[in-house]
Parts: sequence; C-alpha cells; structure tokens
Amino acid sequence: MSYFAIISLNLPKITSMLTLSEYQNAIAEEFNSIAVNQNPTSLYEPISYILSIGGKRIRPVLTLMAADIFDGDYKKAISAAKAVEVFHNFSLVHDDIMDDAPLRRGNVTVHEKWNINTGILSGDAMLILAYQFFEDYEPKIFQALAKLFSKTALEVCEGQQYDVDFETRDDVTIPEYLKMIEYKTAVLLGAAMKMGAIVAETSEENADLIYNFGLNLGIAFQLQDDYLDAFGDPETFGKQVGGDIIENKKTYLYLKAMAFSNEENQQQLLHLFSIQPNDNTDKINAVKAIFNASGSSKATQDAIANYTEKAFETLEKMNISEDKKMILRMFGEKLMNRNV
Amino acid sequence: MSYFAIISLNLPKITSMLTLSEYQNAIAEEFNSIAVNQNPTSLYEPISYILSIGGKRIRPVLTLMAADIFDGDYKKAISAAKAVEVFHNFSLVHDDIMDDAPLRRGNVTVHEKWNINTGILSGDAMLILAYQFFEDYEPKIFQALAKLFSKTALEVCEGQQYDVDFETRDDVTIPEYLKMIEYKTAVLLGAAMKMGAIVAETSEENADLIYNFGLNLGIAFQLQDDYLDAFGDPETFGKQVGGDIIENKKTYLYLKAMAFSNEENQQQLLHLFSIQPNDNTDKINAVKAIFNASGSSKATQDAIANYTEKAFETLEKMNISEDKKMILRMFGEKLMNRNV
Repeated sequence: MSYFAIISLNLPKITSMLTLSEYQNAIAEEFNSIAVNQNPTSLYEPISYILSIGGKRIRPVLTLMAADIFDGDYKKAISAAKAVEVFHNFSLVHDDIMDDAPLRRGNVTVHEKWNINTGILSGDAMLILAYQFFEDYEPKIFQALAKLFSKTALEVCEGQQYDVDFETRDDVTIPEYLKMIEYKTAVLLGAAMKMGAIVAETSEENADLIYNFGLNLGIAFQLQDDYLDAFGDPETFGKQVGGDIIENKKTYLYLKAMAFSNEENQQQLLHLFSIQPNDNTDKINAVKAIFNASGSSKATQDAIANYTEKAFETLEKMNISEDKKMILRMFGEKLMNRNV
Repeated sequence: MSYFAIISLNLPKITSMLTLSEYQNAIAEEFNSIAVNQNPTSLYEPISYILSIGGKRIRPVLTLMAADIFDGDYKKAISAAKAVEVFHNFSLVHDDIMDDAPLRRGNVTVHEKWNINTGILSGDAMLILAYQFFEDYEPKIFQALAKLFSKTALEVCEGQQYDVDFETRDDVTIPEYLKMIEYKTAVLLGAAMKMGAIVAETSEENADLIYNFGLNLGIAFQLQDDYLDAFGDPETFGKQVGGDIIENKKTYLYLKAMAFSNEENQQQLLHLFSIQPNDNTDKINAVKAIFNASGSSKATQDAIANYTEKAFETLEKMNISEDKKMILRMFGEKLMNRNV
C-alpha cells in the first residue's frame, strides 16, 4: 500500500495522543533490531531484512492510535502492533512468491534475494512469531487478541485465494470482488484497530465499532486504489498509472463497466482486456474512455464515498469524546482526499 | 514417520485408558469430515485431502494418551490433539514443496496434485487453523497451549532450516546433528504429550517430565530411523533400505563413522558420498562395511539405548500410578523394539 504516504499528514494535536509520525517512530524503533543474530541465521536474516525495509507501517500505527483513542496506553499496545505488522510482512513474503514479484518497497523480494524455500520457511516463522507477541498479555487479553488474529489471518488467506481464482475466471460478480478486497486488505485494517481497543479494555461495542470503521475505510481505500490506478496523477500516484489496465486486471472499474455497457462496448472491453500491445498508450486511453462513458468511473467514486460514509457513521455510535471522534474523522478524510 | 506402523501393537489394558487403536479411531473420526465444503474450495480442498490421507496420527494419539495418563479426560484433549496433527500436516505440505517430493504416504503431494502456490497458501491456512483449535479452551489453558505450540512450531521451522543448511555443509558436528533432529522431529512429540498434560491440569513438574519423555523417545526414534535406513530388514522397514546412503545423507551413522575413521577410511567414505552410481548395491555394501568396522553402528545403537533410557528415567520421577508408568514404558519399549 504505497498510497499510505499520506501518513506524513499532520492531524490536530490533542494532548493524550501522539501524532501519526510519533506512533510511526515508536514502531520503527521496535523493528530496527528485530530477529537479528538469531540462529539459524539463514532463517532469521530474511525476516530481519523484510522488517527493516519497513514501508509506512500503517497497520501497527492504527493499533497504537486505537489504544489511545479508547484511553488506553499506546505503549501497552506495542506488542499487538508488532504482531499485526509481522503478520502483514509474512503475507507479503508469501504473496510475492506466488506473484513471482521481483521487487517490494523498491527492494529485492525475499525469494529473489535468497530463494523460494527460504521465502516459504522464513514466512512460516514470521506467522508463528506474530502469535508469540501476544504472549506479553495476560490470558484473557491474550485469547481475545489471538482469536481475532486467527480469524483475520484466515480471511486474508481466503482473500488471497479468491484473488488467485479470479485471475482465471470471467464470471466474477461485484459482490464477489468486494468480498475479495474486504478479506485480502480491509479485515486486517479493522483488526489492527480492534486490537488496540482490546488492549485498552474498552467496551465490546466500541471494539466492534472501531473494527467496522477500519474495515469500511479499508474497502473505500482499496476501491480508491483501483480508481487512482486508472485516473490518478502520474506525478503523485507512486505506481505506474494504468498498471491494472496493462495487466488486464478485473478491478471494480472493469466489472462495473462490463455491467453498465451495451453488448458492443462489452465486446470492445473484452477485446482490450485480451491484448498485450508493446505500447499501451492507446489501450489505456480506450479503456479509460469506456470507464467514463459507461458510468463506471462515477459508480466507483460513489462506492468510495459510500464506504467512507459508512466508516464515519460508526463514529457517531462510538462512546468516546468528540475530539477523539474528530481525530478519527480527519484521519479518514485526509486518507481519502489524496490527490488524484 | 512410516515407522509408526507400530501403533497397531497391543498394550496392556487398564480400565481408565483406551487402547492405542481406540485413540486412533477417535482422531480419525474427527478428521474424516474436516474442512470439507468450506469456501474458497480451492483453499480448503487441499487441506481436506492431506488430512484425509491420514497416516498413523501418532502425535494426536500421544496427546490423548497423555491426558488420560494424568487422570484427565481424553475427550477434552481432542481439540489440542487436532491442533498438533494439523500443524504436523502443515509442515509436511511445506516441506514437500521444499524437497520437491512427488509422494506423501503413497499419495500425490499437495503441490503436485494442485500447484506450488496452492501448497503454500493451503499450508499457511493450516497453521492458522491449528491455533484456532485452542479456542475451545478457557483463557489460561488456551494461553499455555498456544505458548507451547508457538515455541515448538518455531523450533520445527528452525530444525527444517538446519536440515536444509546441512545439505551443503561438510563440517556438521554431532551436537549440531542432534539439535537438528531434536528440533525437526522430537520437540513435537514432547509437545504433543505435554499438551495432554496441560489439558488434564496436572502439575507443572509432571507436564515437564512427560515433555522430556516424548522428547528423548523422539530423538531415540529418529536415530533408530537412521540406523534402520541402513541396517533394517527390507521386508519390514517400509522404506527403501539404503535410501539415505543412496542420497548421500549425512546421518548420525555417517557423522560417527567420519569421527571414528582413520584418514584412509574418511577419504573412502567422502568418495562414496560423492558418487551417484546407477546400481547402488556396491556403494551401499561398502558404506555399511565402514559403518560397522569404524564402530559407528555400535555407537548409534548405544545412543538409541541412551536416549531411550533417558526417556524412561523421567518416568521414575513422574507423580502417577505404577500401572500408568508401565503403560508409558511398554509403549516406549515396543516402539524401540521394532524389527531390524
């Protein structure tokens, strides 16, 4: 999620909470020396490597932030935050093997730097290490965290499997696609926040509400990523604009365009998503024209707005102070208003 | 561990305990319908497949048996036993990818039947499913089980990594080799028994003793597997006798032979372990002659006897009835006295 560059944004400061970059620094400190010099080094070096190249570490930041939102102490949530981030990196290492990806965060992937077997085994160890971080909590909190974690981790696996399955299917429905991005991406954002709530020992209702806040914001965010991939500003998007179109990826934009188009435009879109020209400029422009003309672009923007609104609605019901609600709302708004 | 065919042996019946095959049936029943019809089927079908082809399921049997040994109820230990077996199968699925193995228990391996990506992802899901079985216990037991499980699972990964590393090293020491088989194989046997003890809520001392019983018996067993691989009876061994020699595997027999041999025999052994003839008969006979002449065969048998004795010594200190001790001792003896 390179789009989380947004984390450098400044939110209004309230005294009981850190700024996002302060949370980020707290996490970075933890990971600077993780798993170094453990034996066998051939197992732990790759773990140390992938955790040190970092990224924005948005998920553990969400855990720390949620703990403070519910009047807990973010320091107590650090172990849970580490579990979330180590799990996320486990999933990246295994996904990169499956996608045969050469680069991750601008660095060589683990299976490229070492080999596939190392990627598999070091990934496995990371999944186990993630659970071990929960051992810092007393049994009741431990069980609540581990239970949420297992459910979420399994959903992430299921989401990844749906994503793989969809590549070779041409009858994927919109609800199926939404379930895939929910499982593959959004549930971990919801769970990251709920873990902060669990550590802060807030009410079950608050914990469920912050989960839904993270979940819906996560779906909105993934849909926006689909949108920006086609219509983003090349200067600010971070990834190659049109990348999904070049790869014939059946995103929300594509599925909605197929649903809204007449037979002729459907055939044209099917044709465009079957070719791989050397120069993609014409293909990208033709596809984007259909996305716009069919009403798919508009429908995607509406869906993003709806899921964002759904996230904000959960705030209304949350039993926290108004300034805390404002923090979460501004966080969500800044996240969704990145430049196109 | 095909050598666990021994499980069909009959142990003396004491009324508070089931026979081994009764424990085995209890486990088999649980796995007959596991993970079937869950979505996405492309993720869960391979899990259902590997669990249904079964094997002897010695590890979960050890868990159930241990629960009864400490006056618990084996039925309460079934979830923990399932966790152990699902974890074991996770490790087989990932190891088979790493070893590029075509067959497992006489059936096609998961990555061969489907593909490597399916093997990776279904394996990951199994590791998470294993943790979920502990959710059937109350928080304190849950934490104790999950903690032991994570420690053990990480050691199994480390053992697998040592095994991989040793393939390309020619300076592996005996203590390093023993640590490798301890981690790769024995710790899970110890942990399987300790989980039964934890569920039965016996004393910490008893739980640690049964762990050591399983651990030492596991090391003895793996060493005996090395021994039988060279000197076993082809009629009863189950695997190809001489398989390790054909594959130039640096087992305990090999390492001891190198340690005990003069320069000339060391050179001969190094040469024999560098060739891959079409007909291996002469090579196998020559290597076995060195194993015998160097005293390595004898040293291996001594080590097996020592680790078995170490396992039995832990029984002396255990606070359980004499007939329960007899059950464990006879189980160990029958296990170690399989025909060569």
